[in-house]
Amino acid sequence: MVHPSTFELGPHTLKIPRTLHKINRNRLVERLRSDNNIPERSIIVLQGGKTLNNYDTDTEPVFRQESYFHWTFGVGEPDYYGAIDLTTGRSYLFAPKLPDSYSIWMGKLYTLNDHLNRYNVDAVYYTEQICQVLSGLKPQVLLTLKGLNTDSNLETFEAQFDGIDKFKINNSLLHPHMAELRVFKTPQELDVIRYTNKISSDAHVEVMKSIRPGMTEYQLESIFLHHCYFNGGARHVSYTCICASGTNGGVLHYGHAAAPNSKTVHDGDMCSFDMGCEYYRYSSDITCSFPANGIFTPDQRIIYEAVLKANRTVMNAVKPGVSWRDMHLLAEKTQLEQMLKHGLLQGDIDEMMKARLGYIFMPHGLGHLLGIDVHDVGGYLFQCPPRSTEPGLRQLRTARILEKDMVLTIEPGIYFVDALLEQARNDPELSKFIVWPVIDRFRSFGGVRIEDDVVITADGCELLTKVPRTVDEIEAIMAEGRKREIEFPQKTLLANYK
Amino acid sequence: MVHPSTFELGPHTLKIPRTLHKINRNRLVERLRSDNNIPERSIIVLQGGKTLNNYDTDTEPVFRQESYFHWTFGVGEPDYYGAIDLTTGRSYLFAPKLPDSYSIWMGKLYTLNDHLNRYNVDAVYYTEQICQVLSGLKPQVLLTLKGLNTDSNLETFEAQFDGIDKFKINNSLLHPHMAELRVFKTPQELDVIRYTNKISSDAHVEVMKSIRPGMTEYQLESIFLHHCYFNGGARHVSYTCICASGTNGGVLHYGHAAAPNSKTVHDGDMCSFDMGCEYYRYSSDITCSFPANGIFTPDQRIIYEAVLKANRTVMNAVKPGVSWRDMHLLAEKTQLEQMLKHGLLQGDIDEMMKARLGYIFMPHGLGHLLGIDVHDVGGYLFQCPPRSTEPGLRQLRTARILEKDMVLTIEPGIYFVDALLEQARNDPELSKFIVWPVIDRFRSFGGVRIEDDVVITADGCELLTKVPRTVDEIEAIMAEGRKREIEFPQKTLLANYK
Repeated sequence: MVHPSTFELGPHTLKIPRTLHKINRNRLVERLRSDNNIPERSIIVLQGGKTLNNYDTDTEPVFRQESYFHWTFGVGEPDYYGAIDLTTGRSYLFAPKLPDSYSIWMGKLYTLNDHLNRYNVDAVYYTEQICQVLSGLKPQVLLTLKGLNTDSNLETFEAQFDGIDKFKINNSLLHPHMAELRVFKTPQELDVIRYTNKISSDAHVEVMKSIRPGMTEYQLESIFLHHCYFNGGARHVSYTCICASGTNGGVLHYGHAAAPNSKTVHDGDMCSFDMGCEYYRYSSDITCSFPANGIFTPDQRIIYEAVLKANRTVMNAVKPGVSWRDMHLLAEKTQLEQMLKHGLLQGDIDEMMKARLGYIFMPHGLGHLLGIDVHDVGGYLFQCPPRSTEPGLRQLRTARILEKDMVLTIEPGIYFVDALLEQARNDPELSKFIVWPVIDRFRSFGGVRIEDDVVITADGCELLTKVPRTVDEIEAIMAEGRKREIEFPQKTLLANYK
Repeated sequence: MVHPSTFELGPHTLKIPRTLHKINRNRLVERLRSDNNIPERSIIVLQGGKTLNNYDTDTEPVFRQESYFHWTFGVGEPDYYGAIDLTTGRSYLFAPKLPDSYSIWMGKLYTLNDHLNRYNVDAVYYTEQICQVLSGLKPQVLLTLKGLNTDSNLETFEAQFDGIDKFKINNSLLHPHMAELRVFKTPQELDVIRYTNKISSDAHVEVMKSIRPGMTEYQLESIFLHHCYFNGGARHVSYTCICASGTNGGVLHYGHAAAPNSKTVHDGDMCSFDMGCEYYRYSSDITCSFPANGIFTPDQRIIYEAVLKANRTVMNAVKPGVSWRDMHLLAEKTQLEQMLKHGLLQGDIDEMMKARLGYIFMPHGLGHLLGIDVHDVGGYLFQCPPRSTEPGLRQLRTARILEKDMVLTIEPGIYFVDALLEQARNDPELSKFIVWPVIDRFRSFGGVRIEDDVVITADGCELLTKVPRTVDEIEAIMAEGRKREIEFPQKTLLANYK
């Protein structure tokens, strides 16, 4: 049960003080007060996530709070509004008035005073009172949230309520400030992200120990989900699980409904499993790559160790002041050098870099900001370096200069994607670097991605992800797993059903 | 992988012929042709579910097709349209044109011809061609789907596309026919519902075997979900899992984000777990009630056996021609008789029924139609008996006369809900029947619900749910489970994390 002023899910899960959000609100108030463009008597008004139905039905997905509202208020239920008065610093919540029948169908009917204690704000009213309460505060302007998410190209969810047209509204001033604040994680937020990383890391290890050729990919997804929820109280994942085996490793966002992790995992397949749990709306984002049968072939080792070298080289180089764009190029260069060394490529590395050959084998960005959203906001705010137009660099979700308390993924990868290899073959400026008879050996390889989550510290980074990473570590963990007896799939299932 | 013309998720899961939808389309054409109000040269146009993002982010929930579109076409991906020409009976799909980069990020780029084979329709075009293709068919009118869902009070998702205003539209004729057809399941649909019931039944047994006092409720949810996905390929549940222990048993729709199955299960608790998996968008809906420690107390046995008697009495009484309203009253009466016999109530049963005392202990309807939606459509169409205004009967999701091939849940229950008991205490017409000192013994009992899925046959029903139901069966299964060693929660988890 929810204890006043902390959140937890069962006695074995992380307890989160609700002061996490009070700290965020204070940071926001302080920042806005120091901006001369913000009118003095402003009130921030945010709308929380709404109850959503599946089309016309009375079923609903399990509610997940809208990210900006969660950052600010930490409310776990739908249909709230929140406000912060910049003059006084006081924070307000507006809760939906629920019918008496709620207690029969849905659970405890909290009073306004209960909510006050649960959410650590200064006052709680019903949503129907929002106009009256805000009017009473006599604001010069209401600041609502409108701005572009540069990963989705969608706009934020802007507050709307009956009567809002009676107020003066500004919807452009707030977004850059909130997005910028979300880029830098507080110690309280870092604790949650450490926890999601710990839970997800353990779940990846469980998958590596449980995998057997003959399983279907989604059975590994199921093991991951179960481990995260059963052991960590993580009911959601930060993104759809990508359980790519064999050639599917070359499909970067495999696993969605049209490609639903439904291939049988074969002996000899390389696996690239990208999965991360969410707890209290904070994300994790981890990819482990390993051979399905637990033993790397020489070719698998070449590619895996090239990617690992890129991952570790970047990890050793990141610190405040470093450009993320440079890190992307460093990862590319490290991988190309290894591919050259092992005879997959030929020619001069600097020329390869200039020709953007790296994009052919790593068609995504090196990594991205991580927080409440898995692709967290703030990548391309107006004061930041702009998005590149060059292949590979264009895919980066941010080109910022690194600063302390940013959380990022480091996720280099090498993939063998038919469409991209054809593109390279048809381009003499790229084709000349590629040793085609060798590359052809990797046509059904799929890909390798090694993805870790880090937080930038004063002089480097802290690695949050704790999974076996070297070839030896992986082979040892998987050998340990193979000693277990695992019954899969329940062989008798369909027999019973018939 | 998807095999042309069948759907399956891994070699151990149910293979579903895509002809399931062709049969549904043929039923629909036949029915509409026999309705004189339908213009002769009509074309049905449906819009499938759209890609949905979580607010401004680039994450999406795993796609689940809109129910009417799934019934008609069985398409598993977003952003399609479908049409059926009533004159010729020909069926059309309109698929989104995906960018070349789809093959790098999302997976195989199917051709229109691939889709034709996958979905067994007569022609496939791109969505951008919909106006041109439909114009070419020279329809008198386009029939779109608009109608009320009587469980949610929401309207169906009506087709919209650029240029639709150039056609004559009728949006009222189609809905009653489609909703009525969905009430009656074909043999192909029944096979899928038998499968979801088998998977969910086995998963409930797994939960009963695994439960230990000290666990958190959601850990049992996690076991259920894992069993359904790992063994049955069921990635979704039909509704949010309700894992109610102790007093939570009196909260009918417990388990949502604001009451997230987060109580510790205590020795002595009665559990009422209402969970059902979804496969290929078809539902199951099963509730098992049992003591957390595996042994019924005398009081638990009284309530459990009263509910089971109601469940089995109804199950023996249902057949074509019987009124569902009468079945609700039969269940109520059976439960009240048992409560009278065991000294919880006093007085005359018929008078209790007249006073609607049954509602106090069973504030929900006896059961509902089940199909693609867990509360399936067609409960209160215009030709059906209307919704009652009386307590308990008002909550019924249908009052129809039963017919062959309807699938329904039978889910009587007895609950001890403070708010309802207070209502009864304050009403002399109800209070007089209640033996308060005895009822007070049950104040923290929670509730018992026993929910099975059945299909109405020519002379009775077929029981689809296969779980232990008698007290002896449940105690035997749970005793078997207690022999297992179960490590929960991973005791070292938080220690590792710190």
